[in-house]
Amino acid sequence: MTPGKKLQGLVAAAITPMTPDGQINLSVIHQYVDYLVSEQKVKNVFDGEGLSLNIQERKQLAEEWMRQGKDKLDHVIIHVGALSLPESQELAKHAAAIGASGIAVIAPSFFKPTNKDELIAFLQKVASEAPVVPFYYYHIPPLTGVKIRVEELLDGIKEQIPTFQGVKFSDTDLLDLAQCINKNEREEFVFLYGVDEQLLSALAIGADGAVGSTYNYLGQKTNLMLQAFAKPDLALARKYQFLTGEFLSYVIKLGFGVAQTKAVMTFVSGIPMGPPRLPLVDASEEFIVKAKAKLDSIVWPDGD
Amino acid sequence: MTPGKKLQGLVAAAITPMTPDGQINLSVIHQYVDYLVSEQKVKNVFDGEGLSLNIQERKQLAEEWMRQGKDKLDHVIIHVGALSLPESQELAKHAAAIGASGIAVIAPSFFKPTNKDELIAFLQKVASEAPVVPFYYYHIPPLTGVKIRVEELLDGIKEQIPTFQGVKFSDTDLLDLAQCINKNEREEFVFLYGVDEQLLSALAIGADGAVGSTYNYLGQKTNLMLQAFAKPDLALARKYQFLTGEFLSYVIKLGFGVAQTKAVMTFVSGIPMGPPRLPLVDASEEFIVKAKAKLDSIVWPDGD
Amino acid sequence: MTPGKKLQGLVAAAITPMTPDGQINLSVIHQYVDYLVSEQKVKNVFDGEGLSLNIQERKQLAEEWMRQGKDKLDHVIIHVGALSLPESQELAKHAAAIGASGIAVIAPSFFKPTNKDELIAFLQKVASEAPVVPFYYYHIPPLTGVKIRVEELLDGIKEQIPTFQGVKFSDTDLLDLAQCINKNEREEFVFLYGVDEQLLSALAIGADGAVGSTYNYLGQKTNLMLQAFAKPDLALARKYQFLTGEFLSYVIKLGFGVAQTKAVMTFVSGIPMGPPRLPLVDASEEFIVKAKAKLDSIVWPDGD
Amino acid sequence: MTPGKKLQGLVAAAITPMTPDGQINLSVIHQYVDYLVSEQKVKNVFDGEGLSLNIQERKQLAEEWMRQGKDKLDHVIIHVGALSLPESQELAKHAAAIGASGIAVIAPSFFKPTNKDELIAFLQKVASEAPVVPFYYYHIPPLTGVKIRVEELLDGIKEQIPTFQGVKFSDTDLLDLAQCINKNEREEFVFLYGVDEQLLSALAIGADGAVGSTYNYLGQKTNLMLQAFAKPDLALARKYQFLTGEFLSYVIKLGFGVAQTKAVMTFVSGIPMGPPRLPLVDASEEFIVKAKAKLDSIVWPDGD
Repeated sequence: MTPGKKLQGLVAAAITPMTPDGQINLSVIHQYVDYLVSEQKVKNVFDGEGLSLNIQERKQLAEEWMRQGKDKLDHVIIHVGALSLPESQELAKHAAAIGASGIAVIAPSFFKPTNKDELIAFLQKVASEAPVVPFYYYHIPPLTGVKIRVEELLDGIKEQIPTFQGVKFSDTDLLDLAQCINKNEREEFVFLYGVDEQLLSALAIGADGAVGSTYNYLGQKTNLMLQAFAKPDLALARKYQFLTGEFLSYVIKLGFGVAQTKAVMTFVSGIPMGPPRLPLVDASEEFIVKAKAKLDSIVWPDGD
Repeated sequence: MTPGKKLQGLVAAAITPMTPDGQINLSVIHQYVDYLVSEQKVKNVFDGEGLSLNIQERKQLAEEWMRQGKDKLDHVIIHVGALSLPESQELAKHAAAIGASGIAVIAPSFFKPTNKDELIAFLQKVASEAPVVPFYYYHIPPLTGVKIRVEELLDGIKEQIPTFQGVKFSDTDLLDLAQCINKNEREEFVFLYGVDEQLLSALAIGADGAVGSTYNYLGQKTNLMLQAFAKPDLALARKYQFLTGEFLSYVIKLGFGVAQTKAVMTFVSGIPMGPPRLPLVDASEEFIVKAKAKLDSIVWPDGD
Repeated sequence: MTPGKKLQGLVAAAITPMTPDGQINLSVIHQYVDYLVSEQKVKNVFDGEGLSLNIQERKQLAEEWMRQGKDKLDHVIIHVGALSLPESQELAKHAAAIGASGIAVIAPSFFKPTNKDELIAFLQKVASEAPVVPFYYYHIPPLTGVKIRVEELLDGIKEQIPTFQGVKFSDTDLLDLAQCINKNEREEFVFLYGVDEQLLSALAIGADGAVGSTYNYLGQKTNLMLQAFAKPDLALARKYQFLTGEFLSYVIKLGFGVAQTKAVMTFVSGIPMGPPRLPLVDASEEFIVKAKAKLDSIVWPDGD
Repeated sequence: MTPGKKLQGLVAAAITPMTPDGQINLSVIHQYVDYLVSEQKVKNVFDGEGLSLNIQERKQLAEEWMRQGKDKLDHVIIHVGALSLPESQELAKHAAAIGASGIAVIAPSFFKPTNKDELIAFLQKVASEAPVVPFYYYHIPPLTGVKIRVEELLDGIKEQIPTFQGVKFSDTDLLDLAQCINKNEREEFVFLYGVDEQLLSALAIGADGAVGSTYNYLGQKTNLMLQAFAKPDLALARKYQFLTGEFLSYVIKLGFGVAQTKAVMTFVSGIPMGPPRLPLVDASEEFIVKAKAKLDSIVWPDGD
């Protein structure tokens, strides 16, 4: 880990490896870290899939990411969100104890906050359990149903959550994102975009980087997109975005969720990610064959 | 508890009492049970608000309901649903150990099942941890986003979940409910309706009863509605439904959720239900004054 | 037509007959009227599908319904709603001129009213073009996206729309409907329910009748349900509702819209309803075969 | 008009001027054209608000735009969409007769197409009434509820609609837009973005320009954004987008629709746009004061 280094560029939304009988498989995290770093050139991890795990599993997984990522990764962000405040607090305290680079919290999606103040009050209670750990809000209205605009959230947030550091922004409302970036003149915060298939559009308005599961297996290609964008060589950046979009668009039509992401990561990386946990079920053989054929058929600009 | 007795009529969706500083307040459950039985004539409880609690709190609360309800209540149904399968399984096992009259499971709402088979596979894994406890599916698509029709779920469910006993049906799709009841000719299952403001419409098509938070404080009135309906005296039943609806419609316009339900129960019963847990916040004083005035203004047919 | 007679019981939402090449087919309206009256015992018609027609076609169709229904039907209600106010006004004036029993107006669904006052202002401008014709509001939020509660609309509506007579209520929010009926103590207004598959639930809370396309071909069966409900013989009424629901539930799964309703009406009545107008396309042969088999398989309580 | 010139850059979505008593006000179109050209540097108009007009009004308005725009504008695109196919066909034929630069059609939003084939069949029937006029599909799922992906629509569209020329794309699904642009390698089609507050994000993935009501009064500023983007000077382009977004975000919070757009255009341009047509009502004085103050407070990069 690299304390003090600004979180930017690509962050892999970590997949939880499972054994065939549905237990978390800590033994492959070592290999997973090496793969991300060496093959995908991705040195940041967001451990985010935890809501299907119980609290002990979440802690064990976080610990293993910290252990294996220690000298290899720049940032390990632990997602500590939960439907229950005390659970979330317990996880935040634990993340602090193991030295996480940051914690992230999603809005509770069952009993939902109905306005900015309620959401901040909740986030504040969690953040204060890890008082020196950078705090990120994980904004994903399509999944949580919590549509409070992030722009509003930012007003005075440092007073309430001194550790506030940024947002994983997983929504298509780019006006909201733009207003956030516009307000962030002093660059106090980072905004990492989470809708992988339209990352270039977020970069255009100033996003600092991205968090997404796509970067587990297309991180290296997306890094080339980031480089093209930085030049700027928009035509080249666009080409990368189109090709990533072509793959994602294709698998979305087939049905693309956590289970299918696991399957794709397994065939791309060779690391056995295992089945998802119920109520999700394994990707079908047909999906795997088709997704692999599609990915193999893509001709990338760098000549691979 | 009354083992073997069919669950029907009214079931109070239990409110979780809290201390002012946000801890669960087990000490009032005793009083709460007595109030339900003697004042509201409600002898069944559905302990359902648990998703804001951590697992230890959920267990303690379930235990207290069992302890206090032992000789007074007919049924204590423990909700053991959770986003995480192992958590849900742990709670199911615990509920069985403490002798719950039934367990209920909501569809996981974050990583969602996308079809009937995925949902049943999840429910089956939970149910099998409590192999002799009656099992209820808690169907509430507006909150979970899981819109799998219950009618489809019923096909062959006894083979997969031998303990399957019925459904808490909290949706306005009364075609689905009607098809369920139509399929239930041998009356194997019970269907308890969960949209309190339109219970009479569900009774008309054969619902066995109702689960709802309204019955904590309007249980006695609603029991009179059930009696009128049974005669049948539809005009009288309608009058009760209209008046309950008048109250609910009024408070819904003011903003009505868990926090406001707690406030209403507190002023009606005199039992201090305390604040909700974050991200929810206390009902406003204004809400309480208005809601109380509205409830007091209603003239019920029985001359109260 | 029977002026002064209260509109209640069943109203057939009229299907627009078309020739194979997509023109309105006025020549079968005569036969259609006779069929409704003699076979389905339905004497009220709501001419409502007009939004796919141009204004001349809407007028011609209305005239034909008036001409053919003159001595045979009790009520012909002409739907005069349109996205454009002057069009709606022109249709209202025309409906008055030809002696319609009533006019109905749907909320404009493109540029939408955002509150009660805007909606009433629009309705008022239309109603005033037909100052002695009973006026009905056609409430169908799932299609229009206009979710203004009808209960609110009713307050003071007679002052603004003196001809206001009632509502075609096509929504599953039965709390709203109940509050309407509760407010209608002096029975000034009629409330006709428009979600055919759950009509019994609306009757239970006091709906006066129903408007729906189902009553074109299941009117006679539904009349038997109304009779059973009136006794009241709820068990029998329920049986009818379940069987209607079984058919509707089946065809809904196959895909059920205007085109499919036309096909069902054609095979049940023998009257050629023709194709729908684009963007809708003909029901498939497969649909027709399956829907017919399903309908034929139903064993009704009256022994048909 | 400039026949043969590719439609790109900015297109003003024309506001329909009204007299105080709610009739269309053709007399200000002359002034409106001059204002757009000289003050806003916008030479393309999309006459799109027509769904609140009747068919005669739509024709008169189209004729006036053609008359006044003749030697001043590059493109006048007439929207000929309607809920009714014959109405839409009549308008298409009329637009061809008056020499429109293009016609556009929105998906019918009441009886909706359910798949690509149904939508194309409808569009084809309209397009064929104007067989030498460039045809644009107007994609706006948030208003129509028709979510058929444009990317799918493009496959083989030239065979079915030889005049097909492009899309007004008013949606936040930028993956769909990106796939369209990716497929448009031979640059047969143009893609004009219609979500004004995030135009820069669409430009980043290759949109050809934009259609929007914002360009009536912020066209000149947005043209500067387009120029900055073309250099590329992304930092400057972003600044324009942020400032436009700041205004739009502010007025959206106040409630921003057709009525409010009219009010803004009136105070910015000095041309009286009049009230909207019912069911919409005039912007409030409060809105006007606040919106004007906000717009005046913005400091643009070019030193205005």
